[in-house]
Amino acid sequence: MTARAPIERLPTGISGFDDIAGGGLPKGRPALVTGTTGSGKTFFAVEFLARGILLFGQPGVFVTAEETADSIRRSAASVGFDVEAWEREGRWVFVDASPLDGEEAPVRTVGAYDFGALMARIDHAIRRSEARRVAFDSFSSIIGRFDDVGVMRRELVHIVAGLKALGVTLVLTSERSDEHDGISRYGVEEFVLDNVIVLRNVLRDERRRRTVEIVKFRGLPHRTGEWLFTIDSREGFVVIPLGVARPPTRASTVR
Amino acid sequence: MTARAPIERLPTGISGFDDIAGGGLPKGRPALVTGTTGSGKTFFAVEFLARGILLFGQPGVFVTAEETADSIRRSAASVGFDVEAWEREGRWVFVDASPLDGEEAPVRTVGAYDFGALMARIDHAIRRSEARRVAFDSFSSIIGRFDDVGVMRRELVHIVAGLKALGVTLVLTSERSDEHDGISRYGVEEFVLDNVIVLRNVLRDERRRRTVEIVKFRGLPHRTGEWLFTIDSREGFVVIPLGVARPPTRASTVR
Amino acid sequence: MTARAPIERLPTGISGFDDIAGGGLPKGRPALVTGTTGSGKTFFAVEFLARGILLFGQPGVFVTAEETADSIRRSAASVGFDVEAWEREGRWVFVDASPLDGEEAPVRTVGAYDFGALMARIDHAIRRSEARRVAFDSFSSIIGRFDDVGVMRRELVHIVAGLKALGVTLVLTSERSDEHDGISRYGVEEFVLDNVIVLRNVLRDERRRRTVEIVKFRGLPHRTGEWLFTIDSREGFVVIPLGVARPPTRASTVR
Amino acid sequence: MTARAPIERLPTGISGFDDIAGGGLPKGRPALVTGTTGSGKTFFAVEFLARGILLFGQPGVFVTAEETADSIRRSAASVGFDVEAWEREGRWVFVDASPLDGEEAPVRTVGAYDFGALMARIDHAIRRSEARRVAFDSFSSIIGRFDDVGVMRRELVHIVAGLKALGVTLVLTSERSDEHDGISRYGVEEFVLDNVIVLRNVLRDERRRRTVEIVKFRGLPHRTGEWLFTIDSREGFVVIPLGVARPPTRASTVR
Amino acid sequence: MTARAPIERLPTGISGFDDIAGGGLPKGRPALVTGTTGSGKTFFAVEFLARGILLFGQPGVFVTAEETADSIRRSAASVGFDVEAWEREGRWVFVDASPLDGEEAPVRTVGAYDFGALMARIDHAIRRSEARRVAFDSFSSIIGRFDDVGVMRRELVHIVAGLKALGVTLVLTSERSDEHDGISRYGVEEFVLDNVIVLRNVLRDERRRRTVEIVKFRGLPHRTGEWLFTIDSREGFVVIPLGVARPPTRASTVR
Amino acid sequence: MTARAPIERLPTGISGFDDIAGGGLPKGRPALVTGTTGSGKTFFAVEFLARGILLFGQPGVFVTAEETADSIRRSAASVGFDVEAWEREGRWVFVDASPLDGEEAPVRTVGAYDFGALMARIDHAIRRSEARRVAFDSFSSIIGRFDDVGVMRRELVHIVAGLKALGVTLVLTSERSDEHDGISRYGVEEFVLDNVIVLRNVLRDERRRRTVEIVKFRGLPHRTGEWLFTIDSREGFVVIPLGVARPPTRASTVR
Ligand SMILES: Nc1ncnc2c1ncn2[C@@H]1O[C@H](COP(=O)(O)OP(=O)(O)OP(=O)(O)O)[C@@H](O)[C@H]1O
Ligand SMILES: Nc1ncnc2c1ncn2[C@@H]1O[C@H](COP(=O)(O)OP(=O)(O)OP(=O)(O)O)[C@@H](O)[C@H]1O
Ligand SMILES: Nc1ncnc2c1ncn2[C@@H]1O[C@H](COP(=O)(O)OP(=O)(O)OP(=O)(O)O)[C@@H](O)[C@H]1O
Ligand SMILES: Nc1ncnc2c1ncn2[C@@H]1O[C@H](COP(=O)(O)OP(=O)(O)OP(=O)(O)O)[C@@H](O)[C@H]1O
Ligand SMILES: Nc1ncnc2c1ncn2[C@@H]1O[C@H](COP(=O)(O)OP(=O)(O)OP(=O)(O)O)[C@@H](O)[C@H]1O
Ligand SMILES: Nc1ncnc2c1ncn2[C@@H]1O[C@H](COP(=O)(O)OP(=O)(O)OP(=O)(O)O)[C@@H](O)[C@H]1O
Ligand SMILES: [Mg+2]
Ligand SMILES: [Mg+2]
Ligand SMILES: [Mg+2]
Ligand SMILES: [Mg+2]
Ligand SMILES: [Mg+2]
Ligand SMILES: [Mg+2]
Repeated sequence: MTARAPIERLPTGISGFDDIAGGGLPKGRPALVTGTTGSGKTFFAVEFLARGILLFGQPGVFVTAEETADSIRRSAASVGFDVEAWEREGRWVFVDASPLDGEEAPVRTVGAYDFGALMARIDHAIRRSEARRVAFDSFSSIIGRFDDVGVMRRELVHIVAGLKALGVTLVLTSERSDEHDGISRYGVEEFVLDNVIVLRNVLRDERRRRTVEIVKFRGLPHRTGEWLFTIDSREGFVVIPLGVARPPTRASTVR
Repeated sequence: MTARAPIERLPTGISGFDDIAGGGLPKGRPALVTGTTGSGKTFFAVEFLARGILLFGQPGVFVTAEETADSIRRSAASVGFDVEAWEREGRWVFVDASPLDGEEAPVRTVGAYDFGALMARIDHAIRRSEARRVAFDSFSSIIGRFDDVGVMRRELVHIVAGLKALGVTLVLTSERSDEHDGISRYGVEEFVLDNVIVLRNVLRDERRRRTVEIVKFRGLPHRTGEWLFTIDSREGFVVIPLGVARPPTRASTVR
Repeated sequence: MTARAPIERLPTGISGFDDIAGGGLPKGRPALVTGTTGSGKTFFAVEFLARGILLFGQPGVFVTAEETADSIRRSAASVGFDVEAWEREGRWVFVDASPLDGEEAPVRTVGAYDFGALMARIDHAIRRSEARRVAFDSFSSIIGRFDDVGVMRRELVHIVAGLKALGVTLVLTSERSDEHDGISRYGVEEFVLDNVIVLRNVLRDERRRRTVEIVKFRGLPHRTGEWLFTIDSREGFVVIPLGVARPPTRASTVR
Repeated sequence: MTARAPIERLPTGISGFDDIAGGGLPKGRPALVTGTTGSGKTFFAVEFLARGILLFGQPGVFVTAEETADSIRRSAASVGFDVEAWEREGRWVFVDASPLDGEEAPVRTVGAYDFGALMARIDHAIRRSEARRVAFDSFSSIIGRFDDVGVMRRELVHIVAGLKALGVTLVLTSERSDEHDGISRYGVEEFVLDNVIVLRNVLRDERRRRTVEIVKFRGLPHRTGEWLFTIDSREGFVVIPLGVARPPTRASTVR
Repeated sequence: MTARAPIERLPTGISGFDDIAGGGLPKGRPALVTGTTGSGKTFFAVEFLARGILLFGQPGVFVTAEETADSIRRSAASVGFDVEAWEREGRWVFVDASPLDGEEAPVRTVGAYDFGALMARIDHAIRRSEARRVAFDSFSSIIGRFDDVGVMRRELVHIVAGLKALGVTLVLTSERSDEHDGISRYGVEEFVLDNVIVLRNVLRDERRRRTVEIVKFRGLPHRTGEWLFTIDSREGFVVIPLGVARPPTRASTVR
Repeated sequence: MTARAPIERLPTGISGFDDIAGGGLPKGRPALVTGTTGSGKTFFAVEFLARGILLFGQPGVFVTAEETADSIRRSAASVGFDVEAWEREGRWVFVDASPLDGEEAPVRTVGAYDFGALMARIDHAIRRSEARRVAFDSFSSIIGRFDDVGVMRRELVHIVAGLKALGVTLVLTSERSDEHDGISRYGVEEFVLDNVIVLRNVLRDERRRRTVEIVKFRGLPHRTGEWLFTIDSREGFVVIPLGVARPPTRASTVR
């Protein structure tokens, strides 16, 4: 009965993630990655670009709004990715939307954020690098005032639509301040974006436990519920497949 | 003792739903469908129109306020509905109330939403297609500022009354940000609309579980409590009848 | 030791309710009926007038502030009450305080509600029909802005005192958005009105359960705690007496 | 070692209450009685005056701020107190601070409450009747706007100090909207008044249970914890002594 | 390795308290005593001064901001302290910062509290009596508006620094409205003061239970956790040592 | 595959902490230490500088924003650190950002805090002492008004970036008012800083229990979950290694 083809998949290459995603992220559509501090949002974003380069030869653009580009480079290096090399090859491009340009110079307009200029720089970076993947980390840090939820929603709609129009697949991160209140801090981002992934880092009985969950893929099936994952210096972001017990040799690293 | 006939039913054709609804939705009256992100609101709305066309030959109008028409077409295609074909036959009409007209052009008046113009377009679409069913997805995304609950209530009363006057049966979706606080985000929509359906997608012990519940049908009996349902690429939105165990072959899809 | 007679009772005629109420509602005094959406507030109000007409020959006035008169007529018909016949006989009078006059015409003053004019219309209807009972459904929908709790309290005091002065027994409904926070949404109505009844519709283990509770009768004894009730197409609003097991033949209707 | 005599007791005469109070309320000092709707605040206030008249020959003044004097008379009559007779004898005086003067006339200044005029009327009533007891029911209803907690505190300090200066023992009631958030709605009244009594009416497993607790007596010992009580048409407000099982003949009245 | 002597202790003389405090309060430093209404804050403050006079010959200043001096005198008398005698001997000085000067005269400036004038009077009282101990009961009641937490913090810093500069050991009380939200109402006082003591009066299974806990002593060890205490007409404020069962003869007083 | 070296470690020298930190704090990066009052934030900050001096010969700057320098000196002395000696040797420099300069003089600009001047003084102190470590205790106390979370975030970004640019490793403390709501009071600090450590002091069954947890190290592995620690007069801040039972001789000190 079908006429129009459904949404395609973009395999992320992130270990184990494509299995629970039913093949990959919905192609050309924005995905929200939300989590508390340290839950692994930035690592997910880094892996998303890195695996695209390593496994599929797809260039990527990383928009840094919280950390500096240099900080991202170092974090990536800590799990074995040589971002600088990719930058030299034009396969990874940073767009610095952080409050500080480079490590030292103070920013011009933090309060009234100039979204138009930012979008122009991102557009340019995408075209120059022929990027297929964009990571934006994080949305929360560029919103100066969170009071007016209506304005926040409108700005987000604009950013997302602008990037969607460029045909890239977007991973946009967003903060939540605890594990037990809905998806995002203001309950807005998850309704605007087509796809929603939650990273959790729950403290129970003095121990932490990391899980990833696909909460929504508009128009595409996916596995549901929470899946364990680890962040590891050798393998990076690894989703643990169902039925696979954590190997004993890893136990000491995790705690 | 009865003189006046009670409210008629409109069978939705959604698999299993009409059984718990006591035959269908109250005809000519608005129904609120509320749920968290990814709970299946848009699918319910799509199925409502699609089943009307396929099973009852009733044309429908789909008002898109969050996603674009194209996004809805693709989601519908993912469960086997060829919306474009129906559009060509004049049996399915989109009214685009989303912030973006088409995929790229920016919208004119997001802040001060022009409800009058929107109602005129919906009215026109209904008359042209002789629609009996209208889906409006979602109410939450067209409210610019959520602060003044009184204004929100008044606008909603107007929209609903306008559509009721046209004699169509309306499915209007609305957001909630978590599963545990009343019916809707601001506690208003459920009192304005005659009928209320809640879709839940609860996380318990790392697993998700989808249920549908009819919370209110003004003036009509219905089954009460939560009922399991699934969203499935082959069968779409399927409410599982009481006493029917989930078939083992489906288990892998659901998780 | 008593000199002055205590407050009289007005038997409602609602099946089983007068038993738990110690004979009926306090006569000539206002009663608040509060509950979540679909909890049965409108049905309680309808039964209150209908039983007065059928069992005691007492005319009644129904002030509709949320639903239209026609919607109430249909709901009443669904449990067997021919409201239109009573209207023709002058025993049931609607006062339409809903945002829409009739089904289609838009309202003039929703924001700054004209309470004086409304009270005059209610006064007129009561005198004309010699009504002993008044139902007002619902208070919440006529309050344009909920922000100023002080103003809300004052308006409510005025409405209630106006109706009390006319010697009628009032049932006034009010919304609550969930089952677990006090009596009413703003914690005000229950202190202003002399009598308070709560209708609950609690979801537990995926099933709904309806109960009615008399929380307060100023100056009169009553049974306390929650009592089960059902809404039924043949019998309407029925409070189930203590020690009466739900008959097996009803089980299928209730769920 | 003591030089100055500690605070004296004023036996209330309320059945069982003086036992838990260590003899009575602290004499000449204000006591706050707080509780949810229907918890028995007004009955406590009525009994406080009535027992003073009946058992100790002490006249009393009842300031009504929520209910009308007539409503209080009827409630009192329902438990056997003939307030009108006492009024004729000059032993019970009402000061009407309710929004409506008498049953029908509308009030002049609800918003900006004229506390000075009210205090003058109370002062006059106390001197005329040589009252030793004053009941003020309720403080919450005369506060027009609850927003400014600082103003509320100051007004309350003034009222209380004014009455304390007259040498009477005051019972002042105040609302709380649910059983689980501190003592009073805004967390202010309990710190201003010297003595605090909480009436509870808790719903557990569908049943209600009334308890009274002395939370604070400044400078005086008292029994602590919650004590069961009942409101009964023959005996009024009765605190049940420890170790006394509720007599079987009462069970049917209580539920 | 130590050069500079650590903070000295000031034994309070309060029965059992110095044991859990590791010898006494940190000398010359401010201690916050916070608790719900009736938790014993004022008694702690009274005992602190009284024991200083009785056991160590140290004069004290009591700043009353909520109750009047006379009310404190009577409370003290109720546990056997003859404050008036000490006042005559110049060993106990009241500084009345309460809204009412004496029992009857209305206060001049409650809203915009004149902290400078108050500090001058306290300073004078300390110098005149050669006080080593100051009790300030309570801080909460002199803050007119609680809205601006920043202003509250600044005022508190000033008061505390002023008293610290005078070399006295300060006990400052502060309100909390329930037992389950942090230390103080606005989460500010505990960070400004060097030492924090919480008095609890928890209701569990209808019974009350008093405990005292030292939450913080900056720069000094102390015992941690909650310790039972009683307020008793003969012995005043008594902390019960670990392993000491409450003597059977006391049980009836406590409940 | 790695090109760029990952972030280096700075061993803190705090007993047991470096083990769970995987060697130490990320070098040259800011770490947030958050906790309720008395949880040990100041001790952590003091130990961080003291161990740097004692074990690694690294000078440090301590910015005091809440307590005075003298208060810190005394607290440090209480666990055996002679800060004054280090000050004389130029190895420990205080920058006094507290509301009071020295012990007695009132501050000039608390409300509109002059961050530029403060940063200049810190900069100067760092260069003069050749400090490698900076402690800033606490951030919360210098924020005059907490209302505008956007402004708070911006100021914090500036402070942190300024210190990062100087190449020092920063420990910045921040308050939380209870143990159960996210990481920091406003949910902002933890996203701005690269590293997050939470100190907890939980009351359970009347006893307190101290734990330290590394919640986030950007770009570096660490042990996860909560670890017990004690504050001890002889050993200071001691994290207890896994599998080590608390020695019996210490039990009496801890409680
Ligand atoms: N083809 C498909 N097969 C199976 N499941 C699907 C398919 N398409 C979508 N889904 C499921 O349906 C979910 C989306 O449902 P839907 O878009 O109706 O949610 P929604 O309530 O409208 O969410 P939002 O509020 O974010 O718009 C997806 O998250 C996915 O789990
Ligand atoms: N004919 C009927 N037979 C059985 N049950 C019915 C019938 N008509 C209505 N009901 C039940 O009564 C419910 C509606 O009750 P009612 O309209 O009194 O609720 P309400 O409390 O007034 O809700 P709202 O606040 O939304 O107005 C319906 O949801 C349905 O479950
Ligand atoms: N004659 C009576 N016999 C037995 N119980 C009675 C009698 N009169 C009243 N009651 C009970 O007392 C309750 C009312 O108590 P009261 O008016 O003192 O409450 P309240 O706390 O003042 O409430 P509100 O805050 O709404 O004024 C009634 O709900 C009823 O349960
Ligand atoms: N003489 C006494 N003998 C025994 N207990 C007493 C005596 N006097 C007072 N109490 C107890 O002490 C309590 C009052 O303590 P206190 O006034 O110190 O409380 P508080 O914390 O200051 O309260 P508030 O915040 O309302 O001022 C009384 O409620 C009572 O239970
Ligand atoms: N010499 C000591 N020996 C043992 N324990 C001590 C010693 N000095 C302080 N403590 C403990 O350390 C606690 C204070 O720790 P610290 O000042 O670091 O807390 P903090 O988190 O900075 O608190 P605040 O937020 O109020 O500044 C004290 O409450 C006490 O329990
Ligand atoms: N090389 C590494 N090896 C193992 N684990 C690491 C490594 N680098 C970082 N981690 C872990 O990853 C966490 C940081 O993840 P990440 O920066 O992606 O979190 P985030 O969600 O982006 O946090 P924030 O919201 O604060 O930016 C660290 O706290 C650490 O536990
Ligand atoms: Mg990040
Ligand atoms: Mg949707
Ligand atoms: Mg209704
Ligand atoms: Mg009352
Ligand atoms: Mg006190
Ligand atoms: Mg500190």
